[in-house]
Amino acid sequence: MDLTSFLTSLGTDFLIFVALMFLFAWLSRKPGNTVIYYPNRILRGLDPWEGGSMTRNPFAWIKEALSSTEQEVISMSGVDTAVYFVFLSTVLGILVLSSLVLLPILLPVAATEVGQKLANATISNGTFSDLDKLSMGHLKLKSPRLWAFLFGVYWVSFVTYFLLWKAYKHVSDLRATALMSPQAKPEQFAILVRDIPNSLEGQIRKEQVDSYFKTVYPDTFYRSLVVTDNKEVDKIWEELEGFKKKLVRAEAVYALSKKTGNSEGIRPTNKTGFLGLCGAKVDSIEYYTEKINELTPKLEAEQKATLREKQQNAALVFFTSRVTAAAAAQSLHAQLVDTWTVIDAPEPRQVLWPNLKIKFFQRQVRQYVVYIIVALTVVFYMIPIAAISAFTTLDNLKKLLPFLKPILKQEAITTVLEAYLPQIALIVFLALLPKFLLFLSKAEGIPSQSHAIRAASGKYFYFTIFNVFLGITVGGTLFSTFKTIEKDPNSLVDILASSLPSNATYFLTFVALKFFVGYGLELSRLVPLIIFHIKRKYLCKTEAEVKAAWLPSDLGYGTRVPNDLLVITIVLCYSVIAPLILPFGVLYFGLGWLILRNQALKVYIPAYESYGRMWPHMQIRIIASLILYQVTMFGYFGVKRFYYAPFLIPLPIMSLIFSFICSKKFYRFFQHTALEVAAHELKEIPNMEQVYRAFIPPSLSSEKIDDDQYEDAQSSVSRTASFA
Amino acid sequence: MDLTSFLTSLGTDFLIFVALMFLFAWLSRKPGNTVIYYPNRILRGLDPWEGGSMTRNPFAWIKEALSSTEQEVISMSGVDTAVYFVFLSTVLGILVLSSLVLLPILLPVAATEVGQKLANATISNGTFSDLDKLSMGHLKLKSPRLWAFLFGVYWVSFVTYFLLWKAYKHVSDLRATALMSPQAKPEQFAILVRDIPNSLEGQIRKEQVDSYFKTVYPDTFYRSLVVTDNKEVDKIWEELEGFKKKLVRAEAVYALSKKTGNSEGIRPTNKTGFLGLCGAKVDSIEYYTEKINELTPKLEAEQKATLREKQQNAALVFFTSRVTAAAAAQSLHAQLVDTWTVIDAPEPRQVLWPNLKIKFFQRQVRQYVVYIIVALTVVFYMIPIAAISAFTTLDNLKKLLPFLKPILKQEAITTVLEAYLPQIALIVFLALLPKFLLFLSKAEGIPSQSHAIRAASGKYFYFTIFNVFLGITVGGTLFSTFKTIEKDPNSLVDILASSLPSNATYFLTFVALKFFVGYGLELSRLVPLIIFHIKRKYLCKTEAEVKAAWLPSDLGYGTRVPNDLLVITIVLCYSVIAPLILPFGVLYFGLGWLILRNQALKVYIPAYESYGRMWPHMQIRIIASLILYQVTMFGYFGVKRFYYAPFLIPLPIMSLIFSFICSKKFYRFFQHTALEVAAHELKEIPNMEQVYRAFIPPSLSSEKIDDDQYEDAQSSVSRTASFA
Repeated sequence: MDLTSFLTSLGTDFLIFVALMFLFAWLSRKPGNTVIYYPNRILRGLDPWEGGSMTRNPFAWIKEALSSTEQEVISMSGVDTAVYFVFLSTVLGILVLSSLVLLPILLPVAATEVGQKLANATISNGTFSDLDKLSMGHLKLKSPRLWAFLFGVYWVSFVTYFLLWKAYKHVSDLRATALMSPQAKPEQFAILVRDIPNSLEGQIRKEQVDSYFKTVYPDTFYRSLVVTDNKEVDKIWEELEGFKKKLVRAEAVYALSKKTGNSEGIRPTNKTGFLGLCGAKVDSIEYYTEKINELTPKLEAEQKATLREKQQNAALVFFTSRVTAAAAAQSLHAQLVDTWTVIDAPEPRQVLWPNLKIKFFQRQVRQYVVYIIVALTVVFYMIPIAAISAFTTLDNLKKLLPFLKPILKQEAITTVLEAYLPQIALIVFLALLPKFLLFLSKAEGIPSQSHAIRAASGKYFYFTIFNVFLGITVGGTLFSTFKTIEKDPNSLVDILASSLPSNATYFLTFVALKFFVGYGLELSRLVPLIIFHIKRKYLCKTEAEVKAAWLPSDLGYGTRVPNDLLVITIVLCYSVIAPLILPFGVLYFGLGWLILRNQALKVYIPAYESYGRMWPHMQIRIIASLILYQVTMFGYFGVKRFYYAPFLIPLPIMSLIFSFICSKKFYRFFQHTALEVAAHELKEIPNMEQVYRAFIPPSLSSEKIDDDQYEDAQSSVSRTASFA
Repeated sequence: MDLTSFLTSLGTDFLIFVALMFLFAWLSRKPGNTVIYYPNRILRGLDPWEGGSMTRNPFAWIKEALSSTEQEVISMSGVDTAVYFVFLSTVLGILVLSSLVLLPILLPVAATEVGQKLANATISNGTFSDLDKLSMGHLKLKSPRLWAFLFGVYWVSFVTYFLLWKAYKHVSDLRATALMSPQAKPEQFAILVRDIPNSLEGQIRKEQVDSYFKTVYPDTFYRSLVVTDNKEVDKIWEELEGFKKKLVRAEAVYALSKKTGNSEGIRPTNKTGFLGLCGAKVDSIEYYTEKINELTPKLEAEQKATLREKQQNAALVFFTSRVTAAAAAQSLHAQLVDTWTVIDAPEPRQVLWPNLKIKFFQRQVRQYVVYIIVALTVVFYMIPIAAISAFTTLDNLKKLLPFLKPILKQEAITTVLEAYLPQIALIVFLALLPKFLLFLSKAEGIPSQSHAIRAASGKYFYFTIFNVFLGITVGGTLFSTFKTIEKDPNSLVDILASSLPSNATYFLTFVALKFFVGYGLELSRLVPLIIFHIKRKYLCKTEAEVKAAWLPSDLGYGTRVPNDLLVITIVLCYSVIAPLILPFGVLYFGLGWLILRNQALKVYIPAYESYGRMWPHMQIRIIASLILYQVTMFGYFGVKRFYYAPFLIPLPIMSLIFSFICSKKFYRFFQHTALEVAAHELKEIPNMEQVYRAFIPPSLSSEKIDDDQYEDAQSSVSRTASFA
């Protein structure tokens, strides 16, 4: 890629970004769009615009984002979001500090080197351009100027250690502050018990759990909630809720028809068959009312049956003290370690109920099976895609889907399809990959949503690093030099290193596209806006339906963090080879910080709170990127025939030691609640009944159910006292 | 080695054993020797001979040992000893069950093979004998009879899995029973807190610890005992105790002289200089009385100073409940994981006080440094020994120790010395090695004696396996075939395998020597007996000194277990190659069980109780031996050109999975006390003051010290209540 085409691409990206910025400024001022641009504020009962005025400066959001405090982020979007901003600002800090030293030193050193033509031509394989003059590839072999670049590697490493250390400390404090908050959270009083052994003959599960924990915690045990198999009751409950919604909708349609049409109105009708497309035509209001009346007693009966007969080998146990709950979640309870296993209870909203019953060793097996599947996916994912592409040829399509034949007969469409079918398969695969990885993580038997997302995000990280970074860098070079590797496997590092500079401009363009177009779309929220307006116009009839149409998701760490980590890996690895990438990295994380700050404060609604448990994963992966960088640089200095390259060997070792110290000093607090933190005083004595009720799944909580129905899966204190 | 010399060696060993048995039967009946043969019974206030009669059957001890129950072993010698017997009987079971199947099948299969001469001659390098006919080496290459031996490997492996699984379950139950005992042990109410951060200005350590734990455990915290630097006070205390002993001795000598000599008696005197060899002559009784009077106030002053000013960053914290203490020892207390680290308190008698102050990361560093030193010692220990041997030539000795010259001039002595000096250096090294390894383990910063011994025993195991087994087996072959290895490193397994059969008879002799002579000496206790009689006759003047002369040690797991494990490794590895080794293994562990049962019940006194924590280490090392065996057998079947050798590949994988399942299911309970176990009811409410006092080191405990002196390092509840 030469300079002109690079600048063209950059300019296009920038123009798109500016256009999207103005679009945002214009659209966000329209009152009809507030639910798209300020949903978080609206749901919290705040005025969308702080000043209340539509005539304010269209770029006021920048000022607001910059002046917002961490405390505001926590109160609007939770600790996890605040931790994500610590991550962004730490990386930004690393890149800014690196730029400040590397750009003024390395660019002149590289640019003023003379007589490099030959050496350079051999390395950058014809992609030589003016940009390459500013990179390490421009230096002669064995040049003493390489010392400056070697110093650069050390500088970047030390800046990373320093800022990561500070960040880990800060995040640990954030977590501690949140956990010691005087407002009691239900999950702080509960533990999750799994692998409860089979009870003695005649003893029901609830009695077993209650008597076990009453023996160990005579003073602080409150009550227990035995996990039940809710599959059936959930199904009925969802059906019932669906009918209730449809009834509301039918009534709204009827009311509307009264206003607009004749005073009688037209009673809405629907068909009872498959998807409302076939079957007998009935009066909707009557039909749904009837259905609701039919299902309500069925639900109640199923609730009773579930609580009584579908108790499983897991339970939530509640304590009257935060400290006891925190200590209990960390302690071994049973002599046989694979029974009565405990962990701290997840938030009620993120419990993955169906996973709780999975047994100890089955979880282990599932985990290893999933790891193997992921490893195979990461390395060999191209094979099934190629197979699908080969299968979905036009001829096969014609055979299987005959109704497509008339379309496929047209010459132009055939050509396009033939060219793009493999790509389409790849795009579909990449779009589905995060969901697939989340599915796999849940299949491991992980008990909470946030944990599953962390696990999926780790898998996605390995995928991106292996395929995007290593794939693109090494891939091209690899096949041509396969024979070299066969002779000497150690040359892999050499190949990685020597193919790096030629890909520098490719990645510059990649990063630029990411931040200009990606963040532009993020800020302007064009896609959700369009979908919302279509839905509101043609589909939504009731208030609840309109709300469902604009309700935003959360920040989506599962894919966002691995993507950011990919950018970090790219920028770190090129930071010394082609220092020009550093400003792009700074722009990516700077813009990202600014735009996401706005989105976190005004748009996204967190789906869960894990009190910053994501941080150790981010930190360890930044270190992994750093080590990849250091090893690659060692190889690249070798390619440059620099005799002092072994001076880089201490760096990966130092990174490992740094990572070891960090995890020893901080990590355990991210797994468990420290007792000194849990021991902080509460504002008021918590309402234990409320704490307990928070964990009852909606399909089982009904105001009509009176207490004696809970006797099976959801014990009460007074009852168990007589058993103990 | 041919059959005759093997049988001669075996016969000699057996004769020695029989002689020692009769010696024991004769000596143990003399009343003067009861303190040597029955000290454990005497110390527990029991009659040495249960029947009370000296005329009983001299081999009654065999019946007594066989009829003793596990419960008796626990009450006489503790859980650790009982666990050691589980270890012995499990291994015995493995070998017996293996023998029962392998001997009748494999011996005939090997002996009836014909036409083996050539193949055998190349493998067993001239050590061919009739014994070799009964081994696998006698089979032809690719012989279908090898299937029987392959089946043998599977049989031995499955027997091992089955019995180890049963043993792990049994030991876990033993541990649980001991921990849930209604008799309260002091260490069950305490935790050991280390890495206490620096206290705030003006706050003394004790206040800091007390207020910290009172906040977390407002209801169950009893009091704390801050660890102090006792070096100085220990020194004075030991000096004082020494003088007290000497005074008693001088008085005894004086009393004796009154009886035997003139009625006045001769007042004993001693010299005050170095070792009592020089200096002024003084009256002993007066001198020691004066010294005691001098030191007593000094000790008291030092005690006060120690408690007030030498408090360190560690403390023992006491709770009024076993469950709280057990849970506290497993829970993370501080946000920064390297501060306020907790573990369960060791027994008072086995606390390694000087190690408690060592900080978190220093412990990590020490551990890795020690690992490196041990690895170097295991691999390169011959180098310093060779250097020492080279240095301690006769000429050097003459120069350094001139007084030896007249001896060294004699021809005969010179010859012997020159021949044996290197061996002597090796023997001295091997004798000092366990002490050196224990020293290294303590240097890791381990807080308790039993833990240090476990760590040392592990190191000793690696040493014996690497040097005795691998060294002798591979060593000889290795140098001659060094060029083969250089060409193809994978041939190491081949070499190990092909050198095995030629060493079979060597190891048969080795095991026989071990059990006949070793256990004969163990039972007859000749060495302690002789030392005791010499001491009593010439040195001991007082009752206390006589008791010190016969007081036995403990069983000495630190070296005993690794030695047993070496025998297991040898027997397992040869079990299929030369099945004749199995009866020897059975004899070793059978005799060992019998004789040690006698020793445990009557002789040895346990130095500590770790509630069976040694077991997981034994178990994992038996598995390691098994894997070594399986890998070696895979190599040896390869040497035999047996095409179906890959059928052995699943075995090491199964061993790893078995080990993984065992450690997941059982291991954590050996690290921590399960709460359901700690929650068992106590016989009576424990006397907390007594629990607390049990942990005060003897140099600091004095009846004269009244309570207010404890205010510094040893807080009281009432005092701290006012601070909290």
